[in-house]
Amino acid sequence: MSLTERPHKVCKLGTHRVLEPAGSLPQAAWRLDPTPVAYENEILCDVEVLNLDSASFRQMAEACEHDPGRVANLLTATVGERGKQHNPVTGSGGMFVGRVRSVGAGLRERIALREGDRIASLVSLTLTPLRIEAVERVEMETGRVWVRASAILFESGLYALLPDDLPDEVALAVLDVAGAPAQVRRLAAPGMTVAVFGADGKSGLLACAQARDRVGPTGRVIGIAPSADTPGARLLLEEGYVDEFVAADARDALAILAAIPIALPRLADLTVNCVNCCGTELSSILCTRDEGTVYFFSMCTSFTAAALGAEGVGKDVTMIVGNGYAKDHAAIALQTLRDHPPLRRYFVERFSPKAS
Amino acid sequence: MSLTERPHKVCKLGTHRVLEPAGSLPQAAWRLDPTPVAYENEILCDVEVLNLDSASFRQMAEACEHDPGRVANLLTATVGERGKQHNPVTGSGGMFVGRVRSVGAGLRERIALREGDRIASLVSLTLTPLRIEAVERVEMETGRVWVRASAILFESGLYALLPDDLPDEVALAVLDVAGAPAQVRRLAAPGMTVAVFGADGKSGLLACAQARDRVGPTGRVIGIAPSADTPGARLLLEEGYVDEFVAADARDALAILAAIPIALPRLADLTVNCVNCCGTELSSILCTRDEGTVYFFSMCTSFTAAALGAEGVGKDVTMIVGNGYAKDHAAIALQTLRDHPPLRRYFVERFSPKAS
Repeated sequence: MSLTERPHKVCKLGTHRVLEPAGSLPQAAWRLDPTPVAYENEILCDVEVLNLDSASFRQMAEACEHDPGRVANLLTATVGERGKQHNPVTGSGGMFVGRVRSVGAGLRERIALREGDRIASLVSLTLTPLRIEAVERVEMETGRVWVRASAILFESGLYALLPDDLPDEVALAVLDVAGAPAQVRRLAAPGMTVAVFGADGKSGLLACAQARDRVGPTGRVIGIAPSADTPGARLLLEEGYVDEFVAADARDALAILAAIPIALPRLADLTVNCVNCCGTELSSILCTRDEGTVYFFSMCTSFTAAALGAEGVGKDVTMIVGNGYAKDHAAIALQTLRDHPPLRRYFVERFSPKAS
Repeated sequence: MSLTERPHKVCKLGTHRVLEPAGSLPQAAWRLDPTPVAYENEILCDVEVLNLDSASFRQMAEACEHDPGRVANLLTATVGERGKQHNPVTGSGGMFVGRVRSVGAGLRERIALREGDRIASLVSLTLTPLRIEAVERVEMETGRVWVRASAILFESGLYALLPDDLPDEVALAVLDVAGAPAQVRRLAAPGMTVAVFGADGKSGLLACAQARDRVGPTGRVIGIAPSADTPGARLLLEEGYVDEFVAADARDALAILAAIPIALPRLADLTVNCVNCCGTELSSILCTRDEGTVYFFSMCTSFTAAALGAEGVGKDVTMIVGNGYAKDHAAIALQTLRDHPPLRRYFVERFSPKAS
């Protein structure tokens, strides 16, 4: 980054939208200005659907006793107060899909995006200025919320044009967890043993399919989830995305310890945590060999539980914080679906509007 | 791990000391049984000094308005309630130094430790059964607390015999952050640019010295801390442990952004975060080049702030959770001090009893 690029970089981060505390960046800020106007370096979008992140939606649903009307009110209250959907309990957000309403003057020459294009945001809602006019429908099964709303994206690159060959909702579901298959693609290698916690969920399924491709015939993929009798678990086993499935609750480290000698006699080279509940750090660490890697994609991960957990059992593992962004992650995630027709069918059945 | 090893492994984790919730592991447990008896696989120690981790002690000191008597009471209350020094606010602990009182029957043949040996624990106090009889002195400058107390260590390997060539207190101060220099030694390589946040603190100084050795004459080490006028900052500059020092508050991402073009024109290959306050994740990410590594050694790190921060600025960095344990970390940390006489003098002056 050169000196001349700096003011542009600061703009790109969206600091001009921060209302409080002054001087903070949008993700750290308590409150953003969601005024629906596209400034110089901004893209103004008409939002159609918010796809709340799994940990956040679970918390909201539980706080509202699974009542869609109350979830809608909670969402409206948070966004009204903060100017963004930044769950104050979980600290997480989600993403949106919508259409471009206008592109700031400074961006028009530099990006291909035009008014009316249908896009999905690839940055977290925790830093996206958002104004909700009305909540139309809350889908309790998926955490998708149909709204009339406007949102602001800063600069280019942090959105994806929705593909023609997949229903919007399916693409959205995949893009929401695009980091997981992209990171697994990097970290897994031929011959490795890979353990995936939360294997039957959205990110877990994509992680397993990607891992299976990467480790090849000499490697092994172990899926772990509380029940073998979920649609996702059955898909994993029937289509061979995992070599073995362990039905165990990742919060119960002793149950995981008991399963290890049979399922993972030499422990995992790479463990991927895609669980959407708290308290699974130690199980992930215990499954991993010394000098192996634990990749925490779950937003429920506690930094101190991971750090002190590994120290407490004297396990020399590299623990990686799941980064929602990786180069080409949107393309890699969508391609993972195209490369695996059964997985694609599953996502289409589960997430396209016809099924809901 | 084989089937026959499993019961031994479960024992090693100390589950038999957990009082509540049943079935949890010691670090996750709310309450441990600190009964001062060495069972089969345990080492009972007479504790002399608790070395509270920096984030935890800072929180306790602030909650007690920096009154040593109130800190002592808070410590006694926490340990009395939980059977371990597990700060319920920060989730972190510290370590202890003491003498071996007895070694469990199952360990005597397998380890060299004998009654009367002086050791430092290398596992967190958050999973160490602890009973305090009396707090004798709280040293507000260092977070060291002299006590009459007993503690239990499980199995072998998670302690260090205190060396003969360094004062106990100095060795303790170094061992407390032994993970930092050991991990930097692994991650840094010749020619790299390494940025260290919290460079003038205990772990930051060791990280800088280790990084300077590793990157060699073609690499650069940049130290970052709020003031250039601390004893630690002066040591870094005078002894050349850093090539450049940036006086900036890591919580202020905009100030860090402003400093980057001059101090880190090509950004850092490796950024090490050793800061003992919250809200510095984004600064660490912004300083790091795409495909570089951010190593979070600070216990104040928020997992979601790191994960969403990187995503929010579209930065493709590998973020690593600081693991307090790494193979030979105690030996590497102590050797870092021996290899750098000025650093050793600084630690001796700062942490040995004569100076306090």
